[in-house]
Parts: sequence; C-alpha cells; structure tokens
Amino acid sequence: MTRPSGLQAEESRRTLGRLFAPIQAEMADAERIFQDELGSRFPFVQALVEHCGDYQGKRLRPALVLLTAGACGRTTPAHPVLAAVVEMVHTATLVHDDVLDESMVRRHAATVNAEWGNETAVMLGDHLFAHAYHLAASLDSTLACRWVGQAAIEVCEGEMQQLHHRGNLDLDEPSYFEIIAGKTAALTSVSCRLGAHYAGTEEAVVDSLEAYGRHIGMAFQIADDVLDIWGDERATGKSLGTDLEKQKLTLPLIRLLEIGAPDAVEVARRLLSEARADSRRRLQPLLEESGALDYAWAKARWHIDAALGALEVVGPSAYKDVLVAMAEYVVRRSS
Amino acid sequence: MTRPSGLQAEESRRTLGRLFAPIQAEMADAERIFQDELGSRFPFVQALVEHCGDYQGKRLRPALVLLTAGACGRTTPAHPVLAAVVEMVHTATLVHDDVLDESMVRRHAATVNAEWGNETAVMLGDHLFAHAYHLAASLDSTLACRWVGQAAIEVCEGEMQQLHHRGNLDLDEPSYFEIIAGKTAALTSVSCRLGAHYAGTEEAVVDSLEAYGRHIGMAFQIADDVLDIWGDERATGKSLGTDLEKQKLTLPLIRLLEIGAPDAVEVARRLLSEARADSRRRLQPLLEESGALDYAWAKARWHIDAALGALEVVGPSAYKDVLVAMAEYVVRRSS
Repeated sequence: MTRPSGLQAEESRRTLGRLFAPIQAEMADAERIFQDELGSRFPFVQALVEHCGDYQGKRLRPALVLLTAGACGRTTPAHPVLAAVVEMVHTATLVHDDVLDESMVRRHAATVNAEWGNETAVMLGDHLFAHAYHLAASLDSTLACRWVGQAAIEVCEGEMQQLHHRGNLDLDEPSYFEIIAGKTAALTSVSCRLGAHYAGTEEAVVDSLEAYGRHIGMAFQIADDVLDIWGDERATGKSLGTDLEKQKLTLPLIRLLEIGAPDAVEVARRLLSEARADSRRRLQPLLEESGALDYAWAKARWHIDAALGALEVVGPSAYKDVLVAMAEYVVRRSS
Repeated sequence: MTRPSGLQAEESRRTLGRLFAPIQAEMADAERIFQDELGSRFPFVQALVEHCGDYQGKRLRPALVLLTAGACGRTTPAHPVLAAVVEMVHTATLVHDDVLDESMVRRHAATVNAEWGNETAVMLGDHLFAHAYHLAASLDSTLACRWVGQAAIEVCEGEMQQLHHRGNLDLDEPSYFEIIAGKTAALTSVSCRLGAHYAGTEEAVVDSLEAYGRHIGMAFQIADDVLDIWGDERATGKSLGTDLEKQKLTLPLIRLLEIGAPDAVEVARRLLSEARADSRRRLQPLLEESGALDYAWAKARWHIDAALGALEVVGPSAYKDVLVAMAEYVVRRSS
C-alpha cells in the first residue's frame, strides 16, 4: 500500500523541479507571461499579486499543459499562455479557498485573508479570474476561454455542493466523488485537454489525455483529504485539520462511518459533530484500525492506475516519462 | 439643482420598464439566455442562481448594450448574448459586494451571504463570473472575452483601491474618481463599447459611445454614494449607510472634509472614525449646510452633461431618446 512518504515539502518541490527539466524553458515562459499579465499600476494591487505569486508551489497544472503538449509531439507559442491561464485560475481558487477555510497560512506565509482581510482576498481572487480569461482571450480562438470557463463552472459547482453538504454525516461516496470531480479534477483535466488539443492532436488522444488529467486530479484530492487528517503541518506548510473544523466529510471519514465498528462509528460521529480541537489526533487511530485509511489510499491508487492506463495512447518520450512520474508522485507526496 | 426625487424603487423600475419599450424583445432574449446559461443540474446551485436572478433590478447594463446597438442602426444575434454577459458580471459583483459590505438585504430580499453564508456567496459569485466568460466565448471572436475581462480587472482594481483606502480620512477627489471609474464605470462603458462595436459602427463612434457609458457610470456611482447617506432604506430596498460603517469616504464626505467649517469638519471626522450607528443622521445636516451635497450632485450632473454630449455622434432615433432619458434618470432616481 502506497502511503505518503516522510518527504518535507521543500524536498518534494525539488523532486518536481527535477522532474520538470524537459519543460524548463516553457515553464519559465509561462511564469513570465503570468507576471506580465498580472502587473498593476496600483502599488497595493501589485503587492497583493506578488504575494500570491508565491503560492505557486508545485505548478502541477501548468506542467500538465506543457507535458501533454510535449507528449503529443508539439509545443506551440499558445502553450505557455495556456499554462499561465490555468495557474492563474488555480491561484484564484486558492485565494478564495483560504477565505472559505479561514486558513491563516499557505506555503509557510500568511494567507491574503489573514494579512489583508477577507474582502481584499475576495476581490484579489476575482481579479485573478478576470486576468485568466483576459489572457486566454489573447489566443486566436474562443476555445480556451470556453473550456476554462466550463472547468471553472465545475470547480464552483463542486465547492457549492461541498458547502451544501457541510455537517452532513450521511454524505455518501458517490456524492463525495462528484464534489472532488468538480472542485479539483475539472482543472487538471482541462489542463491536459488544452495541452493536447493545442498540439494539434487527434480527438481520441485528446480525450484520453483529458482522462489522465481527471484521474490525476481525483487521486490528488483524495491524497490531500487524507493528509488534512494525517499530514504534518510543518512539512506541508499549510493549515491542516480544516476539513474537520469545517465539518467537511472526506473519503476516509465516509468509509469509517460506513464500515467501522459500532463504537468507533459512535466516537467518530461525536468528534465530527463537535469539531473539537483534538478531533484529528483522536480520529487517526480509528481511521487506521477500521481500514478506512488504507481504503482511501487504495482509491487514490486506483485513479493513478487509470491515469497511467490513459497515457498508453501516446508513444514513449521524456514528457510521457514525467507524466508517469507525476502520477506516482501524487500518492507519495507529503504536501 | 437636480436632486433624487421621492419616487419609490418600484415606480422607478416601472419608469425604466416603459423606457425600455424599444428593446423589449431583445431584453427578453437576453433574459432567456441568462437563465439558460446558468441552469445547473444541482438543485442547490439552481436555487442559488434563481435567488440572485431576482437581483436584476434595473437591468441598466444589458439595456446599454442593446440601446447603443439600436442607436448605431443594427442589432445582431450577438447583442442579447452580450447583454446577458454584462448582466452576469454585474450580478457576480453584487453577490461579492454584499459579502464585502456584510449587507443583509438586496431588492427587498435576503442577500446570499445572509441566507447561505459568506462562503456560498463567494463561490456563487465565482460561478457567475465563470458563466459570463463561458457565455462570451460562445461568440465568434475572443473580443468580448478580452474586453469584458479587461473591464472586470478594472472593477476589481477599483474595489481593491477602495479597500486599501478604508478609514483614510485624507482620501482626495482624484483617488475617489479613480476608484469609481474602476468599480462602476468600467462595466457601463464596456457595455456601450460592445453594443456599438458589434453593430459594426466605425471606431470614432464606438469610442464616443464608450465615453457615454463611462460618464453614465460615474454619475450613477456618485448618486449611489449620496443615496447611501441620504436615501430611504424602504424605498431603495437595500441596506444603506454601509459606506459609513465600512469607513469608505465618498464624494460628499471628501468635499465636506475639504471645505467645511472647522467645527463641522471636526464633528464629521469624529463621526467617520467612530462609524457610529447615528452617523448618517448626524452627517446629513453638515453635508447640506456646507454645500458638499450640492457639490456632489453638481459633479454627477457634469458627468450627465458629458454623457449627453458624447451621444451627439449618433443621429436621432427611439434608442437615442432612451439613452438621453437614462442619463437624466441616473441623477433623478431614488434607488
């Protein structure tokens, strides 16, 4: 059973940095485009934009755009633009997520809401979204705007469904998967779809690479949800236990409530409905003993295997090697 | 001196309804496109969307798209789509504004944040933005996405500048005008630009109609800011006095602090820094006696005259008549 390794977040980012060597130049282009697009004549706005530029930790989504392009044999000038667009949308969602979660720390720095208040964080997120579409509209067709818009709609629907089910201890697995398919997998799958489509690939290959992105996103979110209960705050560099505080039921908890021994379920239901400060620590042994933790990792693993299967449509290349390694990374990361 | 009339909000909307008779069919098309675009398979999301659909009070922005098109002599199938797009962006900003202002009531109904919490309101706003760009991208070029994106960027910059200056009793007029040019006039001006451009009009006319939209927006925001201190909550159907509570300096207050008698200025500064519940009532006579209120209405009037001047580039038509009447309406409305 694959489990999160003891890697520190820094090491984990260095590992990805090495992995991304084949797309280093295009990643640098995307970063430049990102900064240029967001530049503001207002010093206050510029400072905000620079602050959340540091949120770009792993840059998974822009890497997916560029790697799928490479795996399809052709990277065009549109690709670094698209990479910057998806990273901008992702950054916007992080800024708004921190407001939703009342998180105080991200990437070892204060969140925008912690430093400048919720209102500024809401507006900064809107600003990043607006720039993302403005930048996407610099390309020669409306396709990127349309697809990115559709992905963002699904992200929001997933988030709203999650909010709707807050405190619902009877949330079932299908509803959980529907939520994370929206809030996380919509953006990773559209990143791969854009990368493949703009490389001029045939439709069947585009669809298969989109499926790779969707499965990677599902596995990533399951791992993230496990780490919210299981991770080390110092290593991940962000507030943990927020799902419990916000009474968001995630896969290991749903499984525990479904298959745990009656006394374990009773304790878990009480801890979840009270959202106590020590809930994390007290739920950990219950999740381990019931097999719910292993179950969640197995589901993540299943999505990784499906992602690897979807990659079979492209021939061998340095880019494909990285897509394979990224899939493995998702269920090994500690942050 | 034009002052807000005693019209109730309902009457005021009926007046506009009559005004919009020449574009009635296109407004209905825009409304249908708006509803179709936002339809969700999730009942909770659908309920949220329907709730904020009721926010569409005056529908000034979609009317600007359709009236400028008509004034330029040609309304195309793209126009109702563009009208729905600008209304969606506007609705998104209203939903987020209510979070920022902690407003509880809008259009005589509970705000999304009051009814479902800030988090749902933040996500619903993002959802509306995403749909706006998704819809704009259904047109045959990236132009609408690009222009609407640019306008949304300016809206956010204006809002962030306003937040940055909160509690700053030394805010000056140029900074105030820069803020409202972003947060309000950017969207009214792009509405007119889109209407004129998609009618196939020559560039000089497009620019002039954009200027009309900008001046209308400036006058509208000045009037709104005056009404926040001066208006009747029952008539406007929304929470008033929020600028004072949030320590946002607006034109009449800036003017009072600049030219008021020393004792009036001292009282005003104390009321503004304490943000007391009775600040509105106590500031009203100071604003009236100092001439600050007349000054603010005169500035609004100046923008209306500039808007009317900008209309001279188009020949007489029923549409132009409505654009003229709308300009007058802005400084006569009570909501």
